Amino acid sequence: MPNHFIEPHKGKLLVLTPGMGAVATTFMAGVISARKNLSKPFGSLTQLQTIRLGARSNQRNPLIKDFIDLAGLDDIVFGGWDVISDNAYEAAKRADVLKPQDLEPLKDELGSVQPMKAAFNQKYVKLLKGENIKPLTNKWELAEALREDIRNKISETGASRAVMIWCGSTEVHLHPSACHQSIEAFEKGLKNSDEAIAPSQLYAYAAIKEGVPYANGAPNLSADFPALEQLAEQEKVPIAGKDFKTGQTLMKTILAPGFKTRMLGIRGWFSTNILGNRDGEVLDDPDSFKSKEVSKTGVLDSILQPDEYPDLYKDLYHKVRINYYPPRGDAKEGWDNIDIFGWMGYDMQIKVDFLCRDSILAAPIVLDLALFLDFAKRAGKSGIQEWLSFYFKSPQVNTGHIPEHDIFIQHLRLKNSLRVLGGEEPITHLSENF
Amino acid sequence: MPNHFIEPHKGKLLVLTPGMGAVATTFMAGVISARKNLSKPFGSLTQLQTIRLGARSNQRNPLIKDFIDLAGLDDIVFGGWDVISDNAYEAAKRADVLKPQDLEPLKDELGSVQPMKAAFNQKYVKLLKGENIKPLTNKWELAEALREDIRNKISETGASRAVMIWCGSTEVHLHPSACHQSIEAFEKGLKNSDEAIAPSQLYAYAAIKEGVPYANGAPNLSADFPALEQLAEQEKVPIAGKDFKTGQTLMKTILAPGFKTRMLGIRGWFSTNILGNRDGEVLDDPDSFKSKEVSKTGVLDSILQPDEYPDLYKDLYHKVRINYYPPRGDAKEGWDNIDIFGWMGYDMQIKVDFLCRDSILAAPIVLDLALFLDFAKRAGKSGIQEWLSFYFKSPQVNTGHIPEHDIFIQHLRLKNSLRVLGGEEPITHLSENF
Amino acid sequence: MPNHFIEPHKGKLLVLTPGMGAVATTFMAGVISARKNLSKPFGSLTQLQTIRLGARSNQRNPLIKDFIDLAGLDDIVFGGWDVISDNAYEAAKRADVLKPQDLEPLKDELGSVQPMKAAFNQKYVKLLKGENIKPLTNKWELAEALREDIRNKISETGASRAVMIWCGSTEVHLHPSACHQSIEAFEKGLKNSDEAIAPSQLYAYAAIKEGVPYANGAPNLSADFPALEQLAEQEKVPIAGKDFKTGQTLMKTILAPGFKTRMLGIRGWFSTNILGNRDGEVLDDPDSFKSKEVSKTGVLDSILQPDEYPDLYKDLYHKVRINYYPPRGDAKEGWDNIDIFGWMGYDMQIKVDFLCRDSILAAPIVLDLALFLDFAKRAGKSGIQEWLSFYFKSPQVNTGHIPEHDIFIQHLRLKNSLRVLGGEEPITHLSENF
Amino acid sequence: MPNHFIEPHKGKLLVLTPGMGAVATTFMAGVISARKNLSKPFGSLTQLQTIRLGARSNQRNPLIKDFIDLAGLDDIVFGGWDVISDNAYEAAKRADVLKPQDLEPLKDELGSVQPMKAAFNQKYVKLLKGENIKPLTNKWELAEALREDIRNKISETGASRAVMIWCGSTEVHLHPSACHQSIEAFEKGLKNSDEAIAPSQLYAYAAIKEGVPYANGAPNLSADFPALEQLAEQEKVPIAGKDFKTGQTLMKTILAPGFKTRMLGIRGWFSTNILGNRDGEVLDDPDSFKSKEVSKTGVLDSILQPDEYPDLYKDLYHKVRINYYPPRGDAKEGWDNIDIFGWMGYDMQIKVDFLCRDSILAAPIVLDLALFLDFAKRAGKSGIQEWLSFYFKSPQVNTGHIPEHDIFIQHLRLKNSLRVLGGEEPITHLSENF
Repeated sequence: MPNHFIEPHKGKLLVLTPGMGAVATTFMAGVISARKNLSKPFGSLTQLQTIRLGARSNQRNPLIKDFIDLAGLDDIVFGGWDVISDNAYEAAKRADVLKPQDLEPLKDELGSVQPMKAAFNQKYVKLLKGENIKPLTNKWELAEALREDIRNKISETGASRAVMIWCGSTEVHLHPSACHQSIEAFEKGLKNSDEAIAPSQLYAYAAIKEGVPYANGAPNLSADFPALEQLAEQEKVPIAGKDFKTGQTLMKTILAPGFKTRMLGIRGWFSTNILGNRDGEVLDDPDSFKSKEVSKTGVLDSILQPDEYPDLYKDLYHKVRINYYPPRGDAKEGWDNIDIFGWMGYDMQIKVDFLCRDSILAAPIVLDLALFLDFAKRAGKSGIQEWLSFYFKSPQVNTGHIPEHDIFIQHLRLKNSLRVLGGEEPITHLSENF
Repeated sequence: MPNHFIEPHKGKLLVLTPGMGAVATTFMAGVISARKNLSKPFGSLTQLQTIRLGARSNQRNPLIKDFIDLAGLDDIVFGGWDVISDNAYEAAKRADVLKPQDLEPLKDELGSVQPMKAAFNQKYVKLLKGENIKPLTNKWELAEALREDIRNKISETGASRAVMIWCGSTEVHLHPSACHQSIEAFEKGLKNSDEAIAPSQLYAYAAIKEGVPYANGAPNLSADFPALEQLAEQEKVPIAGKDFKTGQTLMKTILAPGFKTRMLGIRGWFSTNILGNRDGEVLDDPDSFKSKEVSKTGVLDSILQPDEYPDLYKDLYHKVRINYYPPRGDAKEGWDNIDIFGWMGYDMQIKVDFLCRDSILAAPIVLDLALFLDFAKRAGKSGIQEWLSFYFKSPQVNTGHIPEHDIFIQHLRLKNSLRVLGGEEPITHLSENF
Repeated sequence: MPNHFIEPHKGKLLVLTPGMGAVATTFMAGVISARKNLSKPFGSLTQLQTIRLGARSNQRNPLIKDFIDLAGLDDIVFGGWDVISDNAYEAAKRADVLKPQDLEPLKDELGSVQPMKAAFNQKYVKLLKGENIKPLTNKWELAEALREDIRNKISETGASRAVMIWCGSTEVHLHPSACHQSIEAFEKGLKNSDEAIAPSQLYAYAAIKEGVPYANGAPNLSADFPALEQLAEQEKVPIAGKDFKTGQTLMKTILAPGFKTRMLGIRGWFSTNILGNRDGEVLDDPDSFKSKEVSKTGVLDSILQPDEYPDLYKDLYHKVRINYYPPRGDAKEGWDNIDIFGWMGYDMQIKVDFLCRDSILAAPIVLDLALFLDFAKRAGKSGIQEWLSFYFKSPQVNTGHIPEHDIFIQHLRLKNSLRVLGGEEPITHLSENF
Repeated sequence: MPNHFIEPHKGKLLVLTPGMGAVATTFMAGVISARKNLSKPFGSLTQLQTIRLGARSNQRNPLIKDFIDLAGLDDIVFGGWDVISDNAYEAAKRADVLKPQDLEPLKDELGSVQPMKAAFNQKYVKLLKGENIKPLTNKWELAEALREDIRNKISETGASRAVMIWCGSTEVHLHPSACHQSIEAFEKGLKNSDEAIAPSQLYAYAAIKEGVPYANGAPNLSADFPALEQLAEQEKVPIAGKDFKTGQTLMKTILAPGFKTRMLGIRGWFSTNILGNRDGEVLDDPDSFKSKEVSKTGVLDSILQPDEYPDLYKDLYHKVRINYYPPRGDAKEGWDNIDIFGWMGYDMQIKVDFLCRDSILAAPIVLDLALFLDFAKRAGKSGIQEWLSFYFKSPQVNTGHIPEHDIFIQHLRLKNSLRVLGGEEPITHLSENF
């Protein structure tokens, strides 16, 4: 295949994170730590995964980062916004994800990342409080201020370009309204401070207007509506979303495709979570849980196709519970009971107990999305990047497309997309000489 | 793509099972039960799975069995061998897999399947005893007797053709020796009753010589050596193996690819099984466990590629234990503890408890292999059918090929192979218009 | 010690169960089945447990039923009330606890137990419906009708005496009000049909007035207030309650005393239940869950004495969740995560998954309470029988006494009480010759 | 009851530990840390538990340590032997049980505890190696050298008295032989260096001869034979054993009594352990596992009394597995599957997963045994202290006595023994005014 033209990377890449809590600071700490050879960026495809090119017997298996032109870890500089004014070192300590002995050697570099004032309104995240907030109230003015922040931070860090990855809290559940249907309506809404526009949408708008690729790590609406999709196409900016795939949902998107390949039916799937950090406290409230629940429960339907396989999956009873449980601290535990059935309808049960760490699973996603979106921009891609569905609980897709939740199909799509962008044939996994 | 020529199916298909224990009788019961609309053959791709043709938006998703020309359930007739002379109804009751109320309506049909005398030698399965055994001792004569059995049973049942699926016990662990290296050496070995030739090899040889496709559901050597591979090519007979992928290994080949796609490292994987049937009793003995262990532990290495990802998987400590535990009866329980690590080397743990039923998981594999191998034969395929790796713990591959254990790659391969055989394009899962 | 005078048992003992659902019919089936030697009444102390008398080395260990004068299984006859008019055989089939093959041989005897019309008001159990209901509305008249039922049923069955064990549903959560403070106030309340008087209180009142011992298997108020406690003393009727100790709470009262004996601290105890029967449906509703939750969560506080051991248990975070999950059917599953700590405050975790069956655990409690209460009556005991705390989630105690939840102390108390009633010394478990 | 005469404690108490590995150093660290108010000695009855005196309503619940005259933490000084010459600080770091930040403040005090040269012979602990070993070979001389060590260490530390708690490795499984039957035979055996005398017996002998109470934390024979039992009586020295009750066995002795109180039958109990420290490595070897297995499997039989309850427990299939699994490090995980049955023989299942830490559970036992044995000595007790069974997997008892494994009976016995020694009435848990 002919090579796509990829503009070579050069200069620094600024990674901007709205939200500088557990996820963002764990991401920053890991990048700095890897640069110092103090740890490895496990969980990151851009840093560790190889890609097979051509037939297996050819034995061409370069690292992804040697096959396509990605920015390197040394090229990354950091910026962010938060409602709390702690710098990244202080915030990482407060988050209590990483051990003291792992944070100490990174103190100076993390300490130098000071959050910009946030565009924030408690109406959209009821249980979050802070004082590091822009004093503006008009949404258009807030968006303009964020655009200015972006330009200033690029200049301040000497970066040649930027990407923005939402690492902030889950906002209340919102449906797209009239003001979300076109660029014009949205900009009018900004000027009117339309209630339907939540802060995360201001960040997404500002990024896209500045030509900065945007990814959305939470289930918020953010950039997931026609106005910003059109804007991204118009401004030739790649975007991706939404809700990082970690923890219990990650396990679900691994297991469910497995049962389906083997045509094993599922009667019920009960998932309960216990977690003790701020995230847990917020999600224990039924209202705040709503955005998350929609994102979490859609997964099974999409993978299992109950309309196509009614005998196997139509009566599946799926229940997801999240429980605030302080003794667990920042760690999290997900327990699943899965009732499957096979031949002649006979029942089997599976229990999965996952003692997991959300920030540890999310941090490499931040890195990969930053590097892949920067690459996509330089490759001339714009709008929704469906090939990055792999990283999301609720993959954002173009109108008319069906989101793919099967992590193995998502993974094949990601790698075949890279092959094509790198001028190689996609792979079908047929045996040689079949 | 041009259509392959497939010889249309017509007449009865005889499914021959060496071994008429839990797996074979559960298979037979389910086929008969489905024909009577008393249950559904869940777990079977040939009966239930659809196949997407062309772009997603085309919405062409026929059932596999409507896309390619497979024999139907009504076409199947049964035959088998066993060391115990119980008919299939009695054997099913003894196996205690299916509930009495599910077996009763099938009593007449199951009762009419009477096992032929087995070619058996206790030296190769130490803990199995029986009286329904051919009185011959020379291995050539035994093989000839089995060939005669096959011809007689085809004629007796009025079938137009047959397939053979090994459903017998696990034999002691054997390595290929000199007599396994060529057709001539093997036939000489038969005549000399060479010790290296175990009974399952006699069945495989007899099947291939009679033009009957052969699949191997146990970890036995059986047809997994040069002599029978050459014979299968020469006689234009498709073969496949080995060891049906059920239970804990099924879960492992679902989970391990999931961790690997996300570049999550694994420090250790501890798997313990408790089971209370005859299978468990046999495998509790360290010697008998050997064949099984080799089959079970190879899986992770093959999926995870520790040579390619030493930081992630080279130090993985993998331990598999099987425990005879009578209270569990025919059911089985597999408990896994998996120690994974991510970003910066931080640890997480996963526990999986699978209350499973081996025969329920194995029976649809017998059906699918019977129908797919019959189809492969009519499509002119011969020798090892790598595209059927999906069904096996230890996929048999051609010399120089690397076995694929990742169940999702196996599944894509299977379906892309069907697409190609049906004259359609294989699928790459790229987004439309990417 | 001198022997208490125990009036010898003679004649039939009528066991009356308000509620003829899963628990009551499983109890009846098991008694009949044991009489026919078709099964054993496992779980029953009165039938199976021995009691040590004197020093260990004396080796005097008779069965409880050989040590004290209990009614035998052959003496028992059944009676009950239910809002549904199914006889006990039909009700048992509907409950789906016992296998068809175990119910068939009991069909005639179970079928002959026809429920009397219930005193029922949907206001107190919102999700229960039925048509077999007394047409009265005045509560005094309803109580009188129940008393008449009791007399009639005793006469009809030829019994010499009766006991009543509440096996009905959980009523909405009620607090004792003014009408519960004295016999007079209560009887006035009955005549006024006071709203604070729920149906289960009518049954308890009717029983006590008829001299029939009463035990309460649900968390309902029932007989747990001054008026009925006084009445029981006055009428010389023994009573006991409340809420049969089964499932997750049973496990909790086994484990928590264990941790406490060893002075292991507990940071958190998270308990979730999934169950799919009518019970689960009712309790999934937050309001209906209230009575149950109060009964379930008090257990830990009472066992662990956080006031006495603040460093170990004061900050314990205890959460109990009940989830309606239809795939589980009548079976039930309780999953617990327990975060304990030891020496120097170091953490450990315990997970318990209990695949349990509530009716199987409750049925022997019905039997034991019936026989022990009948015995207590003949031994001249009246009012609250604290020595039967062993069987209850929320032991009812006399004013000023502290309920004991530790199952091992409860057990010792039960057996030492039997020893004393049988004229033997209580046991201290000191070593001989200490 | 009259008060026993207890000689008041005064002066320092030297706690001697043969073995200065994970358990001993965790014990020492916790004592020092508690003295500095840096942590609490959770898990210790002598430090934390209260004891009820008289009727509940009297509200007399002093701490055990305020009720009887125990040595205080400030009175304790340490001494020990080990085959490795690391001091206690270095050994604690190597053991990797406690976090660096918890060990640092204890560095000086731990660092000052230097191990004496061990009496060791690799024949009895095959996988242990070290260089800090007494150069003697004659067993009598070794015993004399240990006696001298004890006298020297008492003098060196200025202690007024000592206790010895075995914290060393598990020796190979030995049966008592002729030389174990009398004091004379044993001393003759020492002089002959009889093969049947393992090193732990030398320590026990030396202790008893020096009037030092001895407790045995491993399943070794040690002091569990007539010769040393007689010697202990003769020298008026209390002894106790054997094998500290921690981890999975602790859980078993909590759960099994619970099932038994309720007359629930048990079909099977499968216990598997994974552990990654030196202990695990040693026990993975089938021969070394033998001593441990005997100690672990006896527990259920003793608690459940299958001879008394054959229908419930005679057919119990009990299997214990220990697996060396390096990824787990010093932590340990025990997974149990328990198949119980109830009413009419219906089955239920329980799974318990215990993420435990052996040294954290064992350390407070060392402390309690040291203080209670010292107290027993001052109270004039000699020989086997059955009332300390509470702490052991394999309680050592006097000839003719039956060991008690039920942790709740053990606990009652311990506390009733303390009550009696303190001049109070033992408790029977009867209700007041019953």
